[in-house]
Amino acid sequence: MLSFEVLKQDGQTSARICLMKTAHGVIETPSFVPVATLGSVRSLDSCDLEALGVQCALANTYHLHLKPGDELIRRLGGLHRFMGFSRPLFSDSGGFQAFSYGLGREHNIGKIGCIFPQERADDESARDKKENKKESKRENLTRISDEGIAFKSMYDGAWHFFDAERSMRIQSNLGSDIIMAFDECTSPLSDYDYTRRAMQRTHDWAGLSLRYHDQNQALYGIVQGGWFEDLRRESTEFIASLPFEGIAIGGSLGNCKADMHQVLDWVVPGLDERPRHLLGIGEIDDIFEGVQRGMDTFDCVSPTRIARRGNLYIHPLSGGSVSNKFRINIKSKIYEEDSRPADPLCRCPTCQSYSRAYLRHLYVARELSYFRLASIHNLHFMMRLMEEIRESINKGSFFDLKKRWLEPS
Amino acid sequence: MLSFEVLKQDGQTSARICLMKTAHGVIETPSFVPVATLGSVRSLDSCDLEALGVQCALANTYHLHLKPGDELIRRLGGLHRFMGFSRPLFSDSGGFQAFSYGLGREHNIGKIGCIFPQERADDESARDKKENKKESKRENLTRISDEGIAFKSMYDGAWHFFDAERSMRIQSNLGSDIIMAFDECTSPLSDYDYTRRAMQRTHDWAGLSLRYHDQNQALYGIVQGGWFEDLRRESTEFIASLPFEGIAIGGSLGNCKADMHQVLDWVVPGLDERPRHLLGIGEIDDIFEGVQRGMDTFDCVSPTRIARRGNLYIHPLSGGSVSNKFRINIKSKIYEEDSRPADPLCRCPTCQSYSRAYLRHLYVARELSYFRLASIHNLHFMMRLMEEIRESINKGSFFDLKKRWLEPS
Repeated sequence: MLSFEVLKQDGQTSARICLMKTAHGVIETPSFVPVATLGSVRSLDSCDLEALGVQCALANTYHLHLKPGDELIRRLGGLHRFMGFSRPLFSDSGGFQAFSYGLGREHNIGKIGCIFPQERADDESARDKKENKKESKRENLTRISDEGIAFKSMYDGAWHFFDAERSMRIQSNLGSDIIMAFDECTSPLSDYDYTRRAMQRTHDWAGLSLRYHDQNQALYGIVQGGWFEDLRRESTEFIASLPFEGIAIGGSLGNCKADMHQVLDWVVPGLDERPRHLLGIGEIDDIFEGVQRGMDTFDCVSPTRIARRGNLYIHPLSGGSVSNKFRINIKSKIYEEDSRPADPLCRCPTCQSYSRAYLRHLYVARELSYFRLASIHNLHFMMRLMEEIRESINKGSFFDLKKRWLEPS
Repeated sequence: MLSFEVLKQDGQTSARICLMKTAHGVIETPSFVPVATLGSVRSLDSCDLEALGVQCALANTYHLHLKPGDELIRRLGGLHRFMGFSRPLFSDSGGFQAFSYGLGREHNIGKIGCIFPQERADDESARDKKENKKESKRENLTRISDEGIAFKSMYDGAWHFFDAERSMRIQSNLGSDIIMAFDECTSPLSDYDYTRRAMQRTHDWAGLSLRYHDQNQALYGIVQGGWFEDLRRESTEFIASLPFEGIAIGGSLGNCKADMHQVLDWVVPGLDERPRHLLGIGEIDDIFEGVQRGMDTFDCVSPTRIARRGNLYIHPLSGGSVSNKFRINIKSKIYEEDSRPADPLCRCPTCQSYSRAYLRHLYVARELSYFRLASIHNLHFMMRLMEEIRESINKGSFFDLKKRWLEPS
């Protein structure tokens, strides 16, 4: 289902260029995977994605199961046909949403602040207002047992139940190319004992996922273990020992960016050559750190989500830096008469046609066209960044590139 | 500024094919003019418009004056450059919004029900919810005198004042190709005396508009007079006697579609060859009736507005008819598993890639991409309809085409 080849290994770091071949085409890695929560990368359509050179996308099992239903998607020929996207699709297992609507809510984390993964797929799941309203209730909407996860639908309050078999069946109905084993994601506030129990459940479910998954789909195992070194190492060893076609790193990645790098340093040495996916991470400095540590693919809602909130990426040569998160915020009054494009160095369709002043006007006026134009810009930016990263690995200059982006003189 | 040529006059009716040449290119008429209220046809960008073959668009003086400000747009090079649209632009005079936020609110009309123009530009002005909320207050936000119109901004409640000179200056700042004389639009509930006084004001303002307008812009006079035959005939005679480059028919067009046709029958015989614009009308049967009576251009928010509410146009051969208003409503459960495109005969980008089932899913999930895909479909439909109409006039078969659309056997 998935053929995988390491084309080039960086000399100084664990960064690598790989080629993943699926029935729906190839992915050159390192690659950024936009999130199409409900079968649509918010505010864009599949033609936009293909025009932007997006190689692949990730859809959410939890959301599509509830709306419009995975059985419906199966009857309509699968998710590729349903959403008119001909390129490789990933799907997640639904386990992250169990965290996000369960412990994540209870602990008031998982989305904002310093907790990773802070901008995961579920952020796309509802309109911001509704979400904030619900969030303030802090109701844990999930009940987790060794058998699986019962959860209350965020749409209509009905109770549903996921287990490994169910997650595999839903992902089979979607027909995604790369699927994830069913897992439990823990919170950074979960203690050692809880994190250990959750990891053991994840390991049990890994075996069940391997048993029940559709053999036409490439199944990735998920390493859990929170921010505990021995658990992460144990989970890595166990998951890597199973015949998964790839390995994803999930769950709580600590309390700050340095913690996330630490987790990668615990996990990656225990992995073999198989493809590696970092779940829910997509900020620019994190991409560099992940690539350096050998990660191949990254999914995150961040580029399109921050776009909708007015944040547009800018290249270091246009003033982007770690301190401004490589962003301008277009709602600022300083852009009111700025006739330059969002990023003067950018060649995306938005920057080819529209000024900061116009984008700001659309944003302030809440014109719907703003959301798409801004999302196009940010996704184009990510695509070009990944291209630059691949080129630099190819030329043996990844470290230089990283330095130019993260520590400019 | 505007060269105008009648290329073909229908033998049986007043329908005609004309060519309008402006500094920003040509318009072949009969033509439908989408409304770009705030410098954006809602949910679309200017590249979308050009790709759809949209020949021209109409922007709103009232809205752009308030947001982002016409002076700002002038400093940024005018509206064409600001919105990245290289084709001809119309602007209105601001008079209609004075009606819409004044008498229209007070009389609870102007938008819904049987009153024309029911889907005018101002409908685009704010998000639906806000609008509905405000509407329920029914506060008259305008004060009209012979000098002009004072109005309270719908955005921040500040008071502003428009008169003919001001309207001309704002439209000059926008730099639109075709501009409208300042006018007062009345409600169908306005009595004879009020309608007469408003018409006289409109006539005074017509003279002032001619005096103050930017000579680089083509100025249209506006015929008012409500639903009173003698007033409409008097207004036609007066406006047609002035050196306008074109004539627009505005204001209350009665209480039902037959009334609107009646108004046109009073007005058109009094007009000479100059271009004729029907303000705020864009339903499919109205387009046919207007073309038959010699109208050249039509602006309306309807195609994109109804799209946002789930209504997608279908051709008569796909089941469209006067009784279903040539629409399906995509939110209906019957489309849940319908793998056909919105209109199986349509070749628009939306219908080339997506099914009714997918559009319904996006609509139900309130995914932002829905709004654009639906708007693309409906605008494409209007562009093809106008093309069919022009072809039929060319071949001398306009009446047959109208019959095939409006009275199928």
